Amino acid sequence: MNILKHYRKIWAIEHAQSLLGWDMEVNMPKMGITERSVAKGELSVLAQSLTLDPKFLDLVEKASALETLNDYEKGVIRVLQREIKIAKAFPPEFVRELSEVRSKATMAWSEAKEKDNFRKFEPWLDRIIELSKKAAEYLGYDEYPYDALLDLYEEGLRTKDLEPIFEKLEKDLKPILEQILEAGKISNEHPLEREKYEIQAMEEVNLRILELLGYPLGVKGRLDVSPHPFTSGFGINDVRVTTRYEGFDFRRTLLAVVHEFGHALYELQVDERFMFSPIARGVSLGIHESQSRFWENIIGRSKEFAELIYPLLKEKLPFIRNYTTEDLYAYLNMVRPDYIRVEADEVTYNMHILLRYKLEKLMINEEVKARELPELWNDELERLLGIRPKNYKEGILQDIHWAHATVGYFPTYSLGTLLAAQIKNYILKDMPDFYEKITTGEFAPIREWLKQKVHRYGSVYSPKELLEKSFGEGINPEYFIKYIKEKYLD
Amino acid sequence: MNILKHYRKIWAIEHAQSLLGWDMEVNMPKMGITERSVAKGELSVLAQSLTLDPKFLDLVEKASALETLNDYEKGVIRVLQREIKIAKAFPPEFVRELSEVRSKATMAWSEAKEKDNFRKFEPWLDRIIELSKKAAEYLGYDEYPYDALLDLYEEGLRTKDLEPIFEKLEKDLKPILEQILEAGKISNEHPLEREKYEIQAMEEVNLRILELLGYPLGVKGRLDVSPHPFTSGFGINDVRVTTRYEGFDFRRTLLAVVHEFGHALYELQVDERFMFSPIARGVSLGIHESQSRFWENIIGRSKEFAELIYPLLKEKLPFIRNYTTEDLYAYLNMVRPDYIRVEADEVTYNMHILLRYKLEKLMINEEVKARELPELWNDELERLLGIRPKNYKEGILQDIHWAHATVGYFPTYSLGTLLAAQIKNYILKDMPDFYEKITTGEFAPIREWLKQKVHRYGSVYSPKELLEKSFGEGINPEYFIKYIKEKYLD
Repeated sequence: MNILKHYRKIWAIEHAQSLLGWDMEVNMPKMGITERSVAKGELSVLAQSLTLDPKFLDLVEKASALETLNDYEKGVIRVLQREIKIAKAFPPEFVRELSEVRSKATMAWSEAKEKDNFRKFEPWLDRIIELSKKAAEYLGYDEYPYDALLDLYEEGLRTKDLEPIFEKLEKDLKPILEQILEAGKISNEHPLEREKYEIQAMEEVNLRILELLGYPLGVKGRLDVSPHPFTSGFGINDVRVTTRYEGFDFRRTLLAVVHEFGHALYELQVDERFMFSPIARGVSLGIHESQSRFWENIIGRSKEFAELIYPLLKEKLPFIRNYTTEDLYAYLNMVRPDYIRVEADEVTYNMHILLRYKLEKLMINEEVKARELPELWNDELERLLGIRPKNYKEGILQDIHWAHATVGYFPTYSLGTLLAAQIKNYILKDMPDFYEKITTGEFAPIREWLKQKVHRYGSVYSPKELLEKSFGEGINPEYFIKYIKEKYLD
Repeated sequence: MNILKHYRKIWAIEHAQSLLGWDMEVNMPKMGITERSVAKGELSVLAQSLTLDPKFLDLVEKASALETLNDYEKGVIRVLQREIKIAKAFPPEFVRELSEVRSKATMAWSEAKEKDNFRKFEPWLDRIIELSKKAAEYLGYDEYPYDALLDLYEEGLRTKDLEPIFEKLEKDLKPILEQILEAGKISNEHPLEREKYEIQAMEEVNLRILELLGYPLGVKGRLDVSPHPFTSGFGINDVRVTTRYEGFDFRRTLLAVVHEFGHALYELQVDERFMFSPIARGVSLGIHESQSRFWENIIGRSKEFAELIYPLLKEKLPFIRNYTTEDLYAYLNMVRPDYIRVEADEVTYNMHILLRYKLEKLMINEEVKARELPELWNDELERLLGIRPKNYKEGILQDIHWAHATVGYFPTYSLGTLLAAQIKNYILKDMPDFYEKITTGEFAPIREWLKQKVHRYGSVYSPKELLEKSFGEGINPEYFIKYIKEKYLD
């Protein structure tokens, strides 16, 4: 297939871009940004021009008209048509500018966050709002400009799909949260939060947990440190995760590692035959997040997982001797309205997304300036969770996403969180001893089940098609609400 | 200048290629090679096709005919014409194959070396010999095929330039070595060789030494670990060095760091105005090696440097308490026929290159198979230094270069070593207190002198032009012989 031969060049550029990005967060010396941002910009333009090569367009066009395509081929064409649509929409100068602004804004954000100085990031955020609006106009949309951006991260997702989901979440979760806080049975603080750990010991714990879960450390993966935990795949055979170490409240780094493992496993278990092709990766951010959330929440926050890792923690972290497995479980499942999204509990997490979703809609659909956003952020958090950030670090500067110019990305976190609860239901039907398997660390059949249902398909099917095919229904918030009620109210 | 605008795309690919290569040695999980080697191959072909873009060729051709070019512009055109010549010479399939073989052979070499099993590397070495011969034929040559390869690493270098240099080195160094060994005044072993160090403590020493020398750690550089120490530049603002830690004989890692610093400084001090252009890097491997050797040998192995770093070593390495500064100096300047090139002393070092030079000529000019090379290697080492390797690790498998398919590279190490001794003479004329400055760690004026004489020019001038312009003469082995005699026989 000539299409795949040509695509291999684009694939190679994306492989390089991923590494350039990973390196920026993990290794790059500060001043390296000068040349790195230009290199990334040039490579974006190059990939775009290869995507729009007339011969290639012609091949894709002709192939799309064929009636004999199998699912694999249809998937390739579907994904390429999406990429072509995006490449066509953006003028090369815009692509270069977006890529360069993204690199520089990320460095500015990093500094702004470190110094808790929003001013350092503000002009970049304004540029990113402006570029995102432009992007929406270039891409086109039926109803809201924001829809164009949502679709970039979650194929087919529209504001009108999200509205009822977020409405239901707000409506149902607020009273659940109130009930939990009033009942007082679920911890809202825990002495383990204040226990300090040695970074080296904690790193050993994280590495051992990754081994337990079945992550191919050193063979197809590695664990590094970055300001914001993330997963980066350079193909099916090299998928790396990162975490960070604050030196206390070890749950943060531990759950981040379990979360990123979920992302990595998806990329690692894509069918090897798809290698170098446009479908050799997870299909969307929502589906991706369902995998990370499944491992983080459904497995990582279960009683069985607490039992499994307790001896390991006791061996490596001296203070654990003073706590029981029940303490560990309570600590991993505290519910408390708090500031930082990535550390939020299962009950309040979606409120954080709701906040960002509202702000993003304002940024893209209305006239709002970066300057006004910190205040809007704080007001909205207060409305949703009754607390108000005291500084930028625990407010608007906490996330890297806007610095990455990925407006429209946040809602996929909620989709993934909801979907993880659905997947728990489905796997329990096929594997009634799912929770027993966690206790014994028997993760191979769980990995295999996820591979069969989701991972192996890569991007062959669109998110909606995949869910329909493997589970017979789309995203449905009822499962999540039920899961939360059972876990925290019963 | 439209030429530079187009070149920026090629520059971006090379920036990415450098990072992909650096990552392979420093970070990449094993299996990552599957996709990495394909990515590197595709990017090589892409860079080649951009270099041969007819519009670009036309622009370069027209510019080269202009009479009004300044030195900077002439340099850009000279370098581009070299790159175009190479790109034209190699068919795209050859470029892809070479790049992929290089990646895979490097992994095979790494494994072969670890297991001391030449068989694992042998088929790759045969392919590399074959591809190198092909490369020579594609590039063309007047006298010997090997000349075509030499020119790749050292613009304008021919076998006929090297023959008299290596002849003189063999003729003069053999009796000097015999005299040194007979006289017995220079140590040929030292108890410090057997002292074990903690890797973390040694890493702190290396980092402190890099700071002393003026390396911008974290700002424009970093120190990592790799199987073979090297320097990799991703532009003027991000130039990284690596070393390795064996856990004993700390001289190895320490001098490797000083050596790599010399390479890095060259790249870091190129005129910033050249950024993103084809002349924004060191002009040749020989000139590059003169910089690393200058720091390693002339500075790093001086009495004054031993005095400078003694207190630091004493602070970090407990065993140093039992030794004096004189011990340290003697240890850094032992002379002993030994197996490993990168650990060789100043007197025997060039013999190691002579050996490789002879083998490379055989590989390229005659019919010799990889299978025969270990024996030839051992015979030649015995002839030159009177010792015979007992295994492959300390014989033919010690260097990464042939795995990288860089046949023709080794001779530049000798050129650099000779040139370093010349530069010592030149700097002493301009800076009579050069050695006093080392004692006090006052390296800024030394860095500045090197910048003015060599670094800032990047590749504006060809190696021969640069030496003529800055020093009034080309490579002349007399300086080196005189330096060795004075240091080791007087």
